[in-house]
Amino acid sequence: MPLPGRWLSSLLVRVSGQLTLFDCGEGTQIAWRAAGWGFRRLGAICISHVHADHVAGLPGLLHTLANSDRVEPVTLYGPTGTAEVVRGLRVIAPVLPYELIVTELEPGERFSLPAGCSGVCAAGTHQLPVLGYRVDLPRGRAFLPDRARALNVPLNRWHLLQEGDAVQIGNTVVSPDDVLGPPRPGISVGYVTDTRPTPALSDLVRGVDLLVCEGTYGDDADQTKAAAYTHMTFREAATLARDAGAGQLWLTHFSPSVPYPDEFAGNAREVFAGTTVGYGGLSIRLSFT
Amino acid sequence: MPLPGRWLSSLLVRVSGQLTLFDCGEGTQIAWRAAGWGFRRLGAICISHVHADHVAGLPGLLHTLANSDRVEPVTLYGPTGTAEVVRGLRVIAPVLPYELIVTELEPGERFSLPAGCSGVCAAGTHQLPVLGYRVDLPRGRAFLPDRARALNVPLNRWHLLQEGDAVQIGNTVVSPDDVLGPPRPGISVGYVTDTRPTPALSDLVRGVDLLVCEGTYGDDADQTKAAAYTHMTFREAATLARDAGAGQLWLTHFSPSVPYPDEFAGNAREVFAGTTVGYGGLSIRLSFT
Repeated sequence: MPLPGRWLSSLLVRVSGQLTLFDCGEGTQIAWRAAGWGFRRLGAICISHVHADHVAGLPGLLHTLANSDRVEPVTLYGPTGTAEVVRGLRVIAPVLPYELIVTELEPGERFSLPAGCSGVCAAGTHQLPVLGYRVDLPRGRAFLPDRARALNVPLNRWHLLQEGDAVQIGNTVVSPDDVLGPPRPGISVGYVTDTRPTPALSDLVRGVDLLVCEGTYGDDADQTKAAAYTHMTFREAATLARDAGAGQLWLTHFSPSVPYPDEFAGNAREVFAGTTVGYGGLSIRLSFT
Repeated sequence: MPLPGRWLSSLLVRVSGQLTLFDCGEGTQIAWRAAGWGFRRLGAICISHVHADHVAGLPGLLHTLANSDRVEPVTLYGPTGTAEVVRGLRVIAPVLPYELIVTELEPGERFSLPAGCSGVCAAGTHQLPVLGYRVDLPRGRAFLPDRARALNVPLNRWHLLQEGDAVQIGNTVVSPDDVLGPPRPGISVGYVTDTRPTPALSDLVRGVDLLVCEGTYGDDADQTKAAAYTHMTFREAATLARDAGAGQLWLTHFSPSVPYPDEFAGNAREVFAGTTVGYGGLSIRLSFT
Protein backbone atom coordinates (compact mmCIF):
# COMPACT_ATOMS: atom_id res chain seq x y z
CA MET A 1 0.00 0.00 0.00
CA PRO A 2 1.60 3.30 -0.97
CA LEU A 3 1.84 5.47 2.13
CA PRO A 4 2.85 9.07 2.69
CA GLY A 5 6.60 8.86 3.18
CA ARG A 6 6.84 5.25 2.02
CA TRP A 7 6.86 4.48 -1.67
CA LEU A 8 6.10 1.01 -2.97
CA SER A 9 9.03 -1.36 -3.43
CA SER A 10 11.07 -0.83 -6.54
CA LEU A 11 14.70 -1.00 -7.61
CA LEU A 12 16.51 0.97 -10.27
CA VAL A 13 19.86 -0.37 -11.50
CA ARG A 14 22.10 1.96 -13.46
CA VAL A 15 25.12 0.69 -15.38
CA SER A 16 27.07 3.01 -17.67
CA GLY A 17 24.13 5.41 -17.55
CA GLN A 18 21.66 2.80 -18.76
CA LEU A 19 18.76 1.81 -16.53
CA THR A 20 16.85 -1.31 -15.58
CA LEU A 21 13.80 -0.97 -13.34
CA PHE A 22 12.47 -3.69 -11.08
CA ASP A 23 8.75 -3.31 -10.33
CA CYS A 24 6.69 -0.18 -10.81
CA GLY A 25 3.91 0.44 -8.31
CA GLU A 26 1.85 3.58 -7.93
CA GLY A 27 4.25 6.48 -7.36
CA THR A 28 7.46 4.80 -8.49
CA GLN A 29 8.02 7.46 -11.12
CA ILE A 30 7.72 10.17 -8.47
CA ALA A 31 10.31 8.53 -6.22
CA TRP A 32 12.50 8.07 -9.29
CA ARG A 33 12.22 11.75 -10.19
CA ALA A 34 12.99 12.72 -6.59
CA ALA A 35 16.17 10.65 -6.86
CA GLY A 36 17.20 12.91 -9.72
CA TRP A 37 17.81 10.19 -12.30
CA GLY A 38 16.56 10.74 -15.84
CA PHE A 39 14.06 8.46 -17.53
CA ARG A 40 15.16 8.37 -21.14
CA ARG A 41 17.81 5.69 -20.74
CA LEU A 42 15.48 3.10 -19.26
CA GLY A 43 16.03 0.05 -21.42
CA ALA A 44 14.33 -2.72 -19.46
CA ILE A 45 11.65 -3.23 -16.84
CA CYS A 46 11.50 -6.46 -14.82
CA ILE A 47 8.21 -7.19 -13.08
CA SER A 48 8.18 -9.64 -10.17
CA HIS A 49 4.45 -10.31 -10.51
CA VAL A 50 1.30 -8.54 -11.61
CA HIS A 51 -0.18 -7.48 -8.28
CA ALA A 52 -1.22 -3.82 -8.37
CA ASP A 53 1.45 -2.66 -5.92
CA HIS A 54 4.11 -3.82 -8.39
CA VAL A 55 2.63 -2.70 -11.72
CA ALA A 56 0.02 0.05 -11.20
CA GLY A 57 2.63 2.73 -11.94
CA LEU A 58 3.44 1.35 -15.38
CA PRO A 59 1.08 3.45 -17.54
CA GLY A 60 2.24 6.67 -15.90
CA LEU A 61 5.88 5.67 -16.29
CA LEU A 62 5.35 4.81 -19.95
CA HIS A 63 3.94 8.31 -20.50
CA THR A 64 6.79 9.95 -18.62
CA LEU A 65 9.27 7.94 -20.69
CA ALA A 66 7.51 9.21 -23.81
CA ASN A 67 7.75 12.78 -22.50
CA SER A 68 11.48 12.17 -21.96
CA ASP A 69 11.92 11.63 -25.71
CA ARG A 70 12.57 7.92 -25.50
CA VAL A 71 12.36 6.45 -28.99
CA GLU A 72 14.42 3.26 -28.64
CA PRO A 73 12.50 0.07 -27.74
CA VAL A 74 11.97 -0.83 -24.09
CA THR A 75 11.70 -4.45 -23.03
CA LEU A 76 9.42 -5.45 -20.21
CA TYR A 77 10.03 -8.84 -18.59
CA GLY A 78 7.69 -10.65 -16.25
CA PRO A 79 6.15 -13.98 -15.38
CA THR A 80 3.28 -15.67 -17.19
CA GLY A 81 0.29 -13.33 -17.31
CA THR A 82 2.33 -10.15 -17.66
CA ALA A 83 1.37 -9.52 -21.29
CA GLU A 84 -2.35 -9.55 -20.54
CA VAL A 85 -1.93 -7.11 -17.65
CA VAL A 86 0.23 -4.73 -19.64
CA ARG A 87 -2.33 -4.86 -22.45
CA GLY A 88 -5.07 -3.91 -19.98
CA LEU A 89 -3.09 -1.07 -18.40
CA ARG A 90 -2.14 0.33 -21.78
CA VAL A 91 -5.77 1.35 -22.27
CA ILE A 92 -4.52 4.68 -20.89
CA ALA A 93 -1.17 4.58 -22.70
CA PRO A 94 -2.13 3.19 -26.09
CA VAL A 95 0.22 5.24 -28.26
CA LEU A 96 3.90 5.56 -27.39
CA PRO A 97 6.79 6.94 -29.43
CA TYR A 98 8.85 3.81 -28.65
CA GLU A 99 8.16 0.11 -28.93
CA LEU A 100 7.30 -1.69 -25.70
CA ILE A 101 8.31 -5.33 -26.07
CA VAL A 102 6.71 -7.57 -23.46
CA THR A 103 8.48 -10.87 -22.82
CA GLU A 104 7.10 -13.46 -20.42
CA LEU A 105 9.95 -15.42 -18.85
CA GLU A 106 10.07 -19.04 -17.81
CA PRO A 107 11.63 -19.63 -14.39
CA GLY A 108 15.36 -20.16 -14.88
CA GLU A 109 15.42 -18.28 -18.17
CA ARG A 110 18.37 -16.04 -18.99
CA PHE A 111 17.93 -12.75 -20.80
CA SER A 112 19.88 -9.67 -21.77
CA LEU A 113 19.72 -6.41 -19.88
CA PRO A 114 21.08 -2.95 -20.77
CA ALA A 115 24.80 -2.11 -20.69
CA GLY A 116 26.00 -5.66 -21.17
CA CYS A 117 24.30 -7.04 -18.07
CA SER A 118 22.70 -10.45 -18.08
CA GLY A 119 19.55 -11.35 -16.22
CA VAL A 120 18.25 -14.62 -14.90
CA CYS A 121 15.11 -15.41 -12.96
CA ALA A 122 13.73 -18.09 -10.65
CA ALA A 123 10.20 -18.88 -9.54
CA GLY A 124 9.03 -17.81 -6.12
CA THR A 125 5.91 -18.97 -4.32
CA HIS A 126 3.01 -16.50 -4.10
CA GLN A 127 -0.70 -16.40 -4.87
CA LEU A 128 0.16 -16.05 -8.55
CA PRO A 129 3.29 -16.52 -10.69
CA VAL A 130 6.20 -14.55 -9.25
CA LEU A 131 9.83 -14.29 -10.32
CA GLY A 132 12.97 -13.41 -8.39
CA TYR A 133 15.69 -11.75 -10.47
CA ARG A 134 19.44 -11.61 -10.61
CA VAL A 135 21.48 -9.13 -12.64
CA ASP A 136 25.12 -9.81 -13.45
CA LEU A 137 27.51 -7.27 -14.81
CA PRO A 138 30.51 -9.29 -16.03
CA ARG A 139 34.03 -7.96 -15.69
CA GLY A 140 36.59 -8.54 -18.42
CA ARG A 141 39.93 -10.19 -17.67
CA ALA A 142 42.84 -7.88 -16.94
CA PHE A 143 45.21 -7.14 -19.79
CA LEU A 144 48.82 -7.89 -18.81
CA PRO A 145 51.08 -5.41 -20.65
CA ASP A 146 54.31 -7.15 -19.53
CA ARG A 147 53.22 -10.36 -21.24
CA ALA A 148 52.21 -8.52 -24.38
CA ARG A 149 55.63 -6.82 -24.49
CA ALA A 150 57.40 -10.12 -23.87
CA LEU A 151 55.54 -11.58 -26.87
CA ASN A 152 56.53 -8.56 -28.98
CA VAL A 153 52.94 -7.47 -29.64
CA PRO A 154 53.08 -3.91 -30.95
CA LEU A 155 51.14 -1.39 -28.90
CA ASN A 156 48.69 -0.62 -31.71
CA ARG A 157 47.43 -4.24 -31.73
CA TRP A 158 46.89 -4.62 -27.98
CA HIS A 159 43.27 -3.57 -28.35
CA LEU A 160 42.58 -6.58 -30.59
CA LEU A 161 43.73 -8.94 -27.85
CA GLN A 162 41.75 -6.96 -25.27
CA GLU A 163 38.68 -7.42 -27.44
CA GLY A 164 39.22 -11.17 -27.65
CA ASP A 165 40.87 -11.51 -31.06
CA ALA A 166 44.10 -13.38 -31.71
CA VAL A 167 46.89 -11.53 -33.53
CA GLN A 168 49.71 -12.87 -35.68
CA ILE A 169 53.22 -11.63 -34.85
CA GLY A 170 55.63 -12.90 -37.51
CA ASN A 171 55.09 -16.70 -37.44
CA THR A 172 53.58 -16.73 -33.97
CA VAL A 173 49.87 -16.47 -33.15
CA VAL A 174 49.27 -14.68 -29.87
CA SER A 175 45.88 -15.47 -28.36
CA PRO A 176 44.03 -13.40 -25.76
CA ASP A 177 44.71 -16.16 -23.20
CA ASP A 178 48.42 -15.38 -23.54
CA VAL A 179 48.02 -11.79 -22.39
CA LEU A 180 44.91 -11.77 -20.21
CA GLY A 181 44.75 -12.50 -16.50
CA PRO A 182 42.40 -14.94 -14.82
CA PRO A 183 38.63 -14.39 -14.83
CA ARG A 184 37.52 -11.65 -12.42
CA PRO A 185 34.32 -11.40 -10.50
CA GLY A 186 31.75 -8.97 -11.84
CA ILE A 187 28.99 -7.24 -9.91
CA SER A 188 25.70 -8.91 -9.15
CA VAL A 189 22.42 -7.83 -7.59
CA GLY A 190 19.39 -9.90 -6.61
CA TYR A 191 15.80 -8.70 -6.36
CA VAL A 192 13.35 -10.96 -4.56
CA THR A 193 9.90 -9.98 -3.36
CA ASP A 194 6.44 -11.39 -2.68
CA THR A 195 7.53 -14.94 -2.12
CA ARG A 196 8.51 -17.35 0.60
CA PRO A 197 12.23 -18.13 0.78
CA THR A 198 12.95 -21.19 -1.38
CA PRO A 199 16.05 -23.19 -2.35
CA ALA A 200 15.58 -22.01 -5.96
CA LEU A 201 15.82 -18.41 -4.80
CA SER A 202 18.88 -19.18 -2.66
CA ASP A 203 20.52 -20.64 -5.74
CA LEU A 204 19.47 -17.66 -7.83
CA VAL A 205 21.09 -15.07 -5.58
CA ARG A 206 24.15 -17.16 -4.61
CA GLY A 207 27.01 -14.78 -3.87
CA VAL A 208 25.35 -11.58 -5.09
CA ASP A 209 26.98 -8.37 -3.92
CA LEU A 210 23.61 -6.94 -2.96
CA LEU A 211 20.36 -8.72 -2.29
CA VAL A 212 17.25 -6.54 -2.25
CA CYS A 213 14.68 -8.74 -0.58
CA GLU A 214 11.25 -8.36 0.86
CA GLY A 215 10.74 -8.44 4.60
CA THR A 216 7.04 -7.84 4.92
CA TYR A 217 6.99 -8.46 8.66
CA GLY A 218 9.64 -7.42 11.14
CA ASP A 219 8.43 -9.23 14.22
CA ASP A 220 9.32 -12.92 14.54
CA ALA A 221 5.83 -13.38 16.00
CA ASP A 222 4.41 -12.69 12.52
CA GLN A 223 6.15 -15.71 11.01
CA THR A 224 2.86 -17.64 10.70
CA LYS A 225 1.26 -14.67 8.98
CA ALA A 226 4.25 -14.38 6.66
CA ALA A 227 3.86 -18.03 5.71
CA ALA A 228 0.10 -17.70 5.24
CA TYR A 229 0.41 -14.69 2.95
CA THR A 230 3.54 -16.09 1.21
CA HIS A 231 5.81 -13.34 2.39
CA MET A 232 8.89 -13.31 4.65
CA THR A 233 9.88 -11.99 8.03
CA PHE A 234 13.08 -9.98 8.41
CA ARG A 235 14.68 -13.08 9.94
CA GLU A 236 13.71 -15.24 6.99
CA ALA A 237 15.06 -12.71 4.49
CA ALA A 238 18.30 -12.50 6.47
CA THR A 239 18.55 -16.29 6.49
CA LEU A 240 18.14 -16.30 2.71
CA ALA A 241 20.91 -13.71 2.40
CA ARG A 242 23.23 -15.63 4.73
CA ASP A 243 22.62 -19.00 3.09
CA ALA A 244 23.17 -17.52 -0.34
CA GLY A 245 26.39 -15.83 0.78
CA ALA A 246 25.18 -12.39 -0.26
CA GLY A 247 27.48 -9.42 0.30
CA GLN A 248 24.75 -7.33 1.83
CA LEU A 249 21.01 -7.29 2.26
CA TRP A 250 18.47 -4.50 1.82
CA LEU A 251 15.05 -5.17 3.26
CA THR A 252 11.98 -3.72 1.56
CA HIS A 253 8.22 -4.29 1.02
CA PHE A 254 7.12 -3.65 4.60
CA SER A 255 3.56 -4.30 5.64
CA PRO A 256 1.52 -1.16 6.43
CA SER A 257 1.18 -2.80 9.86
CA VAL A 258 4.91 -2.13 10.38
CA PRO A 259 5.18 1.66 10.54
CA TYR A 260 8.71 1.65 11.97
CA PRO A 261 10.55 -1.28 10.37
CA ASP A 262 13.86 -0.14 11.85
CA GLU A 263 12.64 -1.36 15.23
CA PHE A 264 12.99 -4.91 13.96
CA ALA A 265 16.40 -4.55 12.31
CA GLY A 266 17.93 -6.68 15.08
CA ASN A 267 15.89 -9.71 14.04
CA ALA A 268 17.66 -9.60 10.68
CA ARG A 269 21.11 -8.58 11.90
CA GLU A 270 21.28 -11.42 14.39
CA VAL A 271 21.28 -13.71 11.37
CA PHE A 272 23.00 -11.52 8.81
CA ALA A 273 24.98 -8.54 10.03
CA GLY A 274 25.10 -6.79 6.67
CA THR A 275 21.42 -5.89 6.70
CA THR A 276 20.04 -2.44 5.89
CA VAL A 277 16.38 -1.68 6.53
CA GLY A 278 15.39 0.00 3.29
CA TYR A 279 13.79 3.39 2.83
CA GLY A 280 12.83 5.55 -0.13
CA GLY A 281 15.83 6.73 -2.08
CA LEU A 282 18.31 4.32 -0.52
CA SER A 283 21.16 4.16 -3.01
CA ILE A 284 24.61 2.62 -3.33
CA ARG A 285 27.42 2.56 -5.85
CA LEU A 286 28.86 -0.91 -6.33
CA SER A 287 32.35 -1.13 -7.79
CA PHE A 288 34.45 -3.95 -9.18
CA THR A 289 36.67 -5.37 -6.45
CA MET B 1 2.88 14.68 -14.55
CA PRO B 2 3.13 13.66 -10.90
CA LEU B 3 6.09 15.47 -9.39
CA PRO B 4 7.81 15.23 -6.02
CA GLY B 5 5.87 17.70 -3.88
CA ARG B 6 3.08 18.15 -6.41
CA TRP B 7 0.33 15.56 -6.65
CA LEU B 8 -1.91 15.31 -9.67
CA SER B 9 -5.16 17.31 -9.64
CA SER B 10 -7.96 15.81 -7.65
CA LEU B 11 -10.76 16.99 -5.38
CA LEU B 12 -12.41 15.25 -2.47
CA VAL B 13 -15.80 16.53 -1.29
CA ARG B 14 -17.03 15.43 2.13
CA VAL B 15 -20.63 15.96 3.22
CA SER B 16 -21.91 14.43 6.44
CA GLY B 17 -18.88 12.16 6.44
CA GLN B 18 -19.64 10.79 2.98
CA LEU B 19 -17.14 11.30 0.20
CA THR B 20 -17.13 12.07 -3.50
CA LEU B 21 -13.84 12.05 -5.38
CA PHE B 22 -13.13 14.01 -8.55
CA ASP B 23 -10.34 12.48 -10.65
CA CYS B 24 -7.79 9.95 -9.47
CA GLY B 25 -4.33 10.19 -10.98
CA GLU B 26 -1.23 8.33 -9.87
CA GLY B 27 -0.68 9.06 -6.19
CA THR B 28 -4.10 10.50 -5.36
CA GLN B 29 -4.65 7.87 -2.70
CA ILE B 30 -1.36 8.85 -1.04
CA ALA B 31 -2.31 12.52 -0.91
CA TRP B 32 -5.70 11.46 0.41
CA ARG B 33 -4.14 9.40 3.16
CA ALA B 34 -1.81 12.26 4.04
CA ALA B 35 -4.89 14.45 4.47
CA GLY B 36 -6.03 12.03 7.14
CA TRP B 37 -9.45 11.26 5.68
CA GLY B 38 -10.68 7.67 5.67
CA PHE B 39 -11.52 5.79 2.50
CA ARG B 40 -14.45 3.60 3.47
CA ARG B 41 -17.14 6.21 3.01
CA LEU B 42 -16.29 7.00 -0.59
CA GLY B 43 -19.59 6.65 -2.41
CA ALA B 44 -18.89 8.18 -5.81
CA ILE B 45 -16.02 8.96 -8.14
CA CYS B 46 -16.41 11.53 -10.93
CA ILE B 47 -13.84 11.37 -13.71
CA SER B 48 -13.31 14.43 -15.91
CA HIS B 49 -11.79 12.38 -18.75
CA VAL B 50 -9.73 9.27 -19.23
CA HIS B 51 -6.25 10.69 -19.67
CA ALA B 52 -3.74 8.84 -17.48
CA ASP B 53 -3.10 11.77 -15.15
CA HIS B 54 -6.78 11.68 -14.14
CA VAL B 55 -7.40 7.92 -13.87
CA ALA B 56 -4.13 6.01 -13.42
CA GLY B 57 -4.62 5.92 -9.65
CA LEU B 58 -7.98 4.16 -9.88
CA PRO B 59 -6.87 0.52 -9.52
CA GLY B 60 -4.78 1.32 -6.46
CA LEU B 61 -7.62 3.31 -4.91
CA LEU B 62 -10.07 0.49 -5.56
CA HIS B 63 -7.73 -1.87 -3.69
CA THR B 64 -7.30 0.55 -0.81
CA LEU B 65 -11.06 0.94 -0.60
CA ALA B 66 -11.35 -2.84 -0.42
CA ASN B 67 -8.75 -2.89 2.36
CA SER B 68 -10.85 -0.29 4.18
CA ASP B 69 -13.72 -2.78 4.41
CA ARG B 70 -15.95 -1.02 1.93
CA VAL B 71 -18.81 -3.34 0.99
CA GLU B 72 -21.47 -0.88 -0.22
CA PRO B 73 -21.54 -0.12 -3.97
CA VAL B 74 -19.43 2.70 -5.38
CA THR B 75 -20.56 4.60 -8.46
CA LEU B 76 -18.04 5.91 -10.93
CA TYR B 77 -19.21 8.61 -13.33
CA GLY B 78 -17.38 9.79 -16.40
CA PRO B 79 -17.77 10.76 -20.03
CA THR B 80 -18.18 8.39 -22.98
CA GLY B 81 -15.29 5.92 -23.03
CA THR B 82 -14.95 5.67 -19.25
CA ALA B 83 -16.33 2.13 -19.00
CA GLU B 84 -13.78 0.74 -21.44
CA VAL B 85 -10.90 2.37 -19.57
CA VAL B 86 -12.10 1.18 -16.18
CA ARG B 87 -12.48 -2.32 -17.61
CA GLY B 88 -8.86 -2.19 -18.83
CA LEU B 89 -7.46 -0.86 -15.56
CA ARG B 90 -9.35 -3.43 -13.54
CA VAL B 91 -7.09 -6.11 -14.97
CA ILE B 92 -5.14 -5.49 -11.75
CA ALA B 93 -8.23 -5.07 -9.54
CA PRO B 94 -10.55 -7.74 -10.92
CA VAL B 95 -12.11 -8.86 -7.63
CA LEU B 96 -13.50 -6.32 -5.15
CA PRO B 97 -15.67 -6.78 -2.08
CA TYR B 98 -18.02 -4.05 -3.29
CA GLU B 99 -19.78 -3.41 -6.57
CA LEU B 100 -18.25 -0.75 -8.82
CA ILE B 101 -21.01 0.74 -10.96
CA VAL B 102 -19.68 2.64 -13.96
CA THR B 103 -22.06 5.19 -15.45
CA GLU B 104 -21.18 7.17 -18.55
CA LEU B 105 -22.86 10.59 -18.44
CA GLU B 106 -24.22 12.68 -21.26
CA PRO B 107 -23.29 16.36 -21.07
CA GLY B 108 -25.98 18.15 -19.08
CA GLU B 109 -27.09 15.01 -17.28
CA ARG B 110 -28.06 15.21 -13.60
CA PHE B 111 -27.15 12.45 -11.18
CA SER B 112 -27.21 11.69 -7.47
CA LEU B 113 -24.19 11.99 -5.23
CA PRO B 114 -23.65 10.85 -1.63
CA ALA B 115 -25.26 12.61 1.34
CA GLY B 116 -28.14 14.09 -0.59
CA CYS B 117 -26.00 16.03 -3.02
CA SER B 118 -26.92 16.33 -6.65
CA GLY B 119 -24.46 16.39 -9.51
CA VAL B 120 -24.66 17.81 -12.98
CA CYS B 121 -22.10 17.91 -15.76
CA ALA B 122 -21.32 19.86 -18.92
CA ALA B 123 -19.04 19.10 -21.85
CA GLY B 124 -15.65 20.75 -22.08
CA THR B 125 -13.40 20.88 -25.13
CA HIS B 126 -10.30 18.70 -25.05
CA GLN B 127 -8.63 16.05 -27.23
CA LEU B 128 -11.23 13.55 -26.06
CA PRO B 129 -14.58 13.72 -24.23
CA VAL B 130 -14.27 15.73 -21.02
CA LEU B 131 -16.86 16.75 -18.46
CA GLY B 132 -16.94 19.62 -15.99
CA TYR B 133 -18.89 18.92 -12.80
CA ARG B 134 -21.03 20.78 -10.34
CA VAL B 135 -22.13 19.47 -6.93
CA ASP B 136 -25.07 20.99 -5.11
CA LEU B 137 -25.91 20.36 -1.51
CA PRO B 138 -29.47 21.69 -1.07
CA ARG B 139 -30.54 23.37 2.15
CA GLY B 140 -34.01 22.79 3.57
CA ARG B 141 -36.35 25.70 4.28
CA ALA B 142 -36.34 27.06 7.85
CA PHE B 143 -39.10 25.85 10.18
CA LEU B 144 -40.90 28.81 11.75
CA PRO B 145 -42.03 27.77 15.27
CA ASP B 146 -44.06 30.97 15.82
CA ARG B 147 -46.24 30.16 12.84
CA ALA B 148 -46.70 26.56 13.94
CA ARG B 149 -47.79 27.75 17.40
CA ALA B 150 -50.17 30.30 15.88
CA LEU B 151 -51.76 27.48 13.89
CA ASN B 152 -52.06 25.36 17.04
CA VAL B 153 -49.85 22.55 15.70
CA PRO B 154 -48.85 20.40 18.68
CA LEU B 155 -45.12 20.05 19.23
CA ASN B 156 -45.15 16.30 18.58
CA ARG B 157 -46.37 16.85 14.99
CA TRP B 158 -43.88 19.56 13.98
CA HIS B 159 -41.51 16.96 12.59
CA LEU B 160 -44.15 15.91 10.02
CA LEU B 161 -44.30 19.43 8.64
CA GLN B 162 -40.52 19.68 8.72
CA GLU B 163 -40.39 16.52 6.65
CA GLY B 164 -42.80 17.91 4.07
CA ASP B 165 -46.08 16.29 5.15
CA ALA B 166 -49.33 18.15 5.78
CA VAL B 167 -51.08 17.63 9.15
CA GLN B 168 -54.74 17.96 10.06
CA ILE B 169 -55.54 20.08 13.14
CA GLY B 170 -59.26 19.80 13.86
CA ASN B 171 -60.90 20.84 10.60
CA THR B 172 -57.86 22.69 9.32
CA VAL B 173 -55.11 21.21 7.12
CA VAL B 174 -51.76 22.79 7.83
CA SER B 175 -49.31 22.41 4.97
CA PRO B 176 -45.53 22.74 5.16
CA ASP B 177 -45.75 25.99 3.20
CA ASP B 178 -47.66 27.48 6.15
CA VAL B 179 -44.80 26.94 8.59
CA LEU B 180 -41.64 26.93 6.44
CA GLY B 181 -39.62 29.98 5.43
CA PRO B 182 -38.53 30.84 1.91
CA PRO B 183 -36.08 28.63 -0.02
CA ARG B 184 -32.49 28.99 1.18
CA PRO B 185 -29.32 28.71 -0.83
CA GLY B 186 -27.38 25.49 -0.44
CA ILE B 187 -23.67 24.92 -1.02
CA SER B 188 -22.21 24.34 -4.46
CA VAL B 189 -18.82 23.43 -5.83
CA GLY B 190 -17.59 23.26 -9.42
CA TYR B 191 -14.75 21.14 -10.78
CA VAL B 192 -13.45 21.97 -14.24
CA THR B 193 -10.21 20.73 -15.75
CA ASP B 194 -8.60 19.88 -19.08
CA THR B 195 -10.76 22.10 -21.21
CA ARG B 196 -10.93 25.54 -22.73
CA PRO B 197 -13.33 27.94 -21.01
CA THR B 198 -16.74 27.68 -22.72
CA PRO B 199 -20.19 29.24 -22.23
CA ALA B 200 -21.54 25.81 -21.24
CA LEU B 201 -19.01 25.63 -18.42
CA SER B 202 -19.81 29.18 -17.29
CA ASP B 203 -23.46 28.17 -17.10
CA LEU B 204 -22.57 24.98 -15.26
CA VAL B 205 -20.69 26.71 -12.46
CA ARG B 206 -22.92 29.80 -12.26
CA GLY B 207 -22.84 31.09 -8.68
CA VAL B 208 -20.91 28.19 -7.12
CA ASP B 209 -19.38 28.89 -3.75
CA LEU B 210 -16.09 27.35 -4.83
CA LEU B 211 -14.80 26.72 -8.32
CA VAL B 212 -11.84 24.37 -8.59
CA CYS B 213 -10.52 25.01 -12.06
CA GLU B 214 -7.46 24.18 -14.06
CA GLY B 215 -4.89 26.82 -14.79
CA THR B 216 -2.28 24.88 -16.70
CA TYR B 217 -0.26 27.96 -17.58
CA GLY B 218 0.37 30.95 -15.35
CA ASP B 219 2.00 33.31 -17.80
CA ASP B 220 -0.28 35.27 -20.12
CA ALA B 221 2.34 34.69 -22.82
CA ASP B 222 1.35 31.01 -22.83
CA GLN B 223 -2.20 31.79 -23.94
CA THR B 224 -1.57 30.43 -27.46
CA LYS B 225 -0.13 27.24 -25.99
CA ALA B 226 -3.14 26.94 -23.67
CA ALA B 227 -5.48 27.22 -26.65
CA ALA B 228 -3.46 24.75 -28.71
CA TYR B 229 -3.44 22.12 -25.95
CA THR B 230 -7.06 22.91 -24.93
CA HIS B 231 -6.11 24.12 -21.46
CA MET B 232 -6.43 27.50 -19.74
CA THR B 233 -4.17 30.22 -18.43
CA PHE B 234 -4.66 31.57 -14.92
CA ARG B 235 -6.28 34.64 -16.44
CA GLU B 236 -8.74 32.56 -18.44
CA ALA B 237 -9.72 30.50 -15.39
CA ALA B 238 -10.20 33.69 -13.39
CA THR B 239 -12.36 35.10 -16.15
CA LEU B 240 -14.50 31.99 -16.07
CA ALA B 241 -14.86 32.34 -12.27
CA ARG B 242 -15.74 36.02 -12.55
CA ASP B 243 -18.23 35.56 -15.38
CA ALA B 244 -19.91 32.70 -13.54
CA GLY B 245 -20.13 34.73 -10.32
CA ALA B 246 -18.23 32.12 -8.32
CA GLY B 247 -17.58 32.77 -4.65
CA GLN B 248 -13.95 31.81 -4.89
CA LEU B 249 -11.54 30.12 -7.26
CA TRP B 250 -8.88 27.49 -6.64
CA LEU B 251 -6.41 27.00 -9.46
CA THR B 252 -4.96 23.55 -10.09
CA HIS B 253 -3.46 21.32 -12.84
CA PHE B 254 -0.26 23.28 -13.37
CA SER B 255 2.05 22.38 -16.21
CA PRO B 256 5.39 20.85 -15.13
CA SER B 257 6.84 23.87 -16.96
CA VAL B 258 5.40 26.06 -14.16
CA PRO B 259 7.39 25.04 -11.07
CA TYR B 260 6.29 28.07 -9.02
CA PRO B 261 2.66 28.78 -9.95
CA ASP B 262 2.34 31.33 -7.14
CA GLU B 263 4.49 33.69 -9.18
CA PHE B 264 1.58 34.09 -11.59
CA ALA B 265 -1.19 34.53 -9.00
CA GLY B 266 -1.46 38.21 -9.96
CA ASN B 267 -2.59 37.32 -13.48
CA ALA B 268 -5.65 35.64 -11.98
CA ARG B 269 -6.28 38.09 -9.12
CA GLU B 270 -6.32 41.04 -11.48
CA VAL B 271 -9.46 39.49 -12.95
CA PHE B 272 -10.86 37.68 -9.92
CA ALA B 273 -9.62 38.67 -6.49
CA GLY B 274 -10.85 35.55 -4.74
CA THR B 275 -8.26 33.30 -6.35
CA THR B 276 -6.11 30.79 -4.47
CA VAL B 277 -3.25 29.06 -6.24
CA GLY B 278 -3.80 25.45 -5.25
CA TYR B 279 -1.35 23.09 -3.57
CA GLY B 280 -1.49 19.57 -2.23
CA GLY B 281 -3.79 19.27 0.76
CA LEU B 282 -5.52 22.63 0.29
CA SER B 283 -8.77 22.28 2.20
CA ILE B 284 -11.76 24.38 3.20
CA ARG B 285 -14.96 23.97 5.18
CA LEU B 286 -17.95 25.52 3.44
CA SER B 287 -20.96 26.32 5.61
CA PHE B 288 -24.53 27.30 4.87
CA THR B 289 -24.83 31.08 4.93
